[in-house]
Amino acid sequence: MNAESPRGAQTVLAPGATLGILGGGQLGRMLAVAASRLGLHVHIYSPSSDCPAASVAETLSIGAFDDVEAIIDFAKTCDAVTYEFENVPAMSAKGAASVSPLRPGARALDVSQDRLVEKSFLRAQVGVDVAGFEDVGSVYDLKRAVKRLGLPCVLKTRRLGYDGKGQVIIRAAEEIDAAWNTLAPAPCILEAFIPFAREVSVVAARGLDGQIKAYPLTENVHLNHILHTSTAPAAQDDGSAAKIAAQILEHLDYVGVMGVEFFQMPDGRLIVNEIAPRVHNSGHWTQDGGCTDQFEQHVRAVAGWPLGDATPSRRVVMTNLIGDDVNAWATLAAEPGTRIHLYGKSDIRKGRKMGHVNRVIDEV
Amino acid sequence: MNAESPRGAQTVLAPGATLGILGGGQLGRMLAVAASRLGLHVHIYSPSSDCPAASVAETLSIGAFDDVEAIIDFAKTCDAVTYEFENVPAMSAKGAASVSPLRPGARALDVSQDRLVEKSFLRAQVGVDVAGFEDVGSVYDLKRAVKRLGLPCVLKTRRLGYDGKGQVIIRAAEEIDAAWNTLAPAPCILEAFIPFAREVSVVAARGLDGQIKAYPLTENVHLNHILHTSTAPAAQDDGSAAKIAAQILEHLDYVGVMGVEFFQMPDGRLIVNEIAPRVHNSGHWTQDGGCTDQFEQHVRAVAGWPLGDATPSRRVVMTNLIGDDVNAWATLAAEPGTRIHLYGKSDIRKGRKMGHVNRVIDEV
Repeated sequence: MNAESPRGAQTVLAPGATLGILGGGQLGRMLAVAASRLGLHVHIYSPSSDCPAASVAETLSIGAFDDVEAIIDFAKTCDAVTYEFENVPAMSAKGAASVSPLRPGARALDVSQDRLVEKSFLRAQVGVDVAGFEDVGSVYDLKRAVKRLGLPCVLKTRRLGYDGKGQVIIRAAEEIDAAWNTLAPAPCILEAFIPFAREVSVVAARGLDGQIKAYPLTENVHLNHILHTSTAPAAQDDGSAAKIAAQILEHLDYVGVMGVEFFQMPDGRLIVNEIAPRVHNSGHWTQDGGCTDQFEQHVRAVAGWPLGDATPSRRVVMTNLIGDDVNAWATLAAEPGTRIHLYGKSDIRKGRKMGHVNRVIDEV
Repeated sequence: MNAESPRGAQTVLAPGATLGILGGGQLGRMLAVAASRLGLHVHIYSPSSDCPAASVAETLSIGAFDDVEAIIDFAKTCDAVTYEFENVPAMSAKGAASVSPLRPGARALDVSQDRLVEKSFLRAQVGVDVAGFEDVGSVYDLKRAVKRLGLPCVLKTRRLGYDGKGQVIIRAAEEIDAAWNTLAPAPCILEAFIPFAREVSVVAARGLDGQIKAYPLTENVHLNHILHTSTAPAAQDDGSAAKIAAQILEHLDYVGVMGVEFFQMPDGRLIVNEIAPRVHNSGHWTQDGGCTDQFEQHVRAVAGWPLGDATPSRRVVMTNLIGDDVNAWATLAAEPGTRIHLYGKSDIRKGRKMGHVNRVIDEV
């Protein structure tokens, strides 16, 4: 158990207070809108003035994420600070937390930034199933690890991977050297390949008062390692995933929304793949599910407000608009029951998340 | 029938285009959020930098509404211009329309700015029922008009009245002079008092292609002349109100969302009270009704997009938070099913609209 930052640990943000958000991407953008709706002022910290959140937030500070002094200056203007991504450098997080309540706390960042630390934490401290894994610092480590975990297996950088970046699948012994050369010299982790039946996730929130609310299980389909669709509530939810998410939140003394991704085995067993200490792409469906959306839920949590309703009244399929997909906006706009959410990004690039649509398919 | 501004009459705004909004109050704020969600840039024109829309919009121009040159400069940066209130001066509307498509068009402003013009238009051109009315330019006119319409009756300024401002009820002949002295020398209109059974409204949209979609009938309760609650879908809707709204939209060759307020008589007859060529307070419930909300609907219309779904899946009661009401935010935040929408206004003043809540009471 880790205490939250001692500074302002119980601070509640009333309407008129300022919430700081580290990061100005689409998650920061949607958080900013939710915070404004609750009467909060929003101050975004981003390396770029052209970021998606800039156009909907009241105040923008431009700075690098490793510029600790700039982040402290930013945090001084905020009644609480949160973040939209898990790769906030530890020194910057500590700097922010030294002058303003940082929610979720720095411990959540420590754990989720490093796949090795994350998997060790999940297995040893929370006691949940994760894929077999081995620390890999050299090609010799890697060869030994492949023998232990078997083929196929997946070599991943410990830090900074996302959307399939920083990982290589190894299917045969002859691929080991090439895999290593692709990722070295970054510290790596080798993970056993999981022959899952489906990928699911849970987005759950924990309030400042310790209350936990989980959204229903969500089934996810990835294409080219990027989330393609999320459907919720998913079929066959026995509540296990929400229980695991709650354990993780408790162990981190967490405040805010977290995304927990699972592999589900053919026998139903859940293996935690990774956690994200933030609002999560697989929770975007909540915006049109007839419940409090994950962005407002996160703001409520980090502002010290009671959590909102996490029980949807509608079944929704969220589909990401990746790259050129967004050019179909006129067709999508004409579809009944399809809700469009665009991120205001001017450059369409391959693999870039440009927006998403939520399609209401059913009442729950 | 009036043609829309000839300039760019058929212009469609793709994501990345800029929508200008005249006015930066809460309606402009919620329009700005909706436009951003559709990937549009938003440029607000407001007399005050401290306005509710400023904190959620990308660009803000400060200027007076009668500064025609400033409004033309503003409109030049926009691919289309709309407004959040009906009192845009005619010269300013013409100025904006000379450089950018103005939607809804100037005719809607002309009609709705002046109660006398509005009632004459509704009765003579659209052919719908309105309260009896007389043009009043002097206390002599007023006395004659009272004789014609009978007591009680309501003296109103022709222009700039809202939330009960600019109107006096006359219950007895002895009150005529005092009523006149309260409002003179403003040009006035005397209206017959309507002993209505209830107040209802319809928010309806007309697209650039002429398509019309009306939200269900909404029942409204006013307190101290300010809207207190709106409940939708209202009971006993035979579709007449939506038909009347559609006629009005057609007659104005209207593009955008309009609010039409009615008095409903004990026998069910509908009398049009007034029209508002903009998103309307009695349409705020749409934000949580499970359909396209009125703000997105207005943006879709003025951007030339197909209209969204106007059929709600849930019954909602909207309650305005007036003045001190907003201090109950913590209690409201803890109510299940209550959605909070605050406007970011720093000064709480008596009678000031600070926010609203939508309470979902039922599936439809």
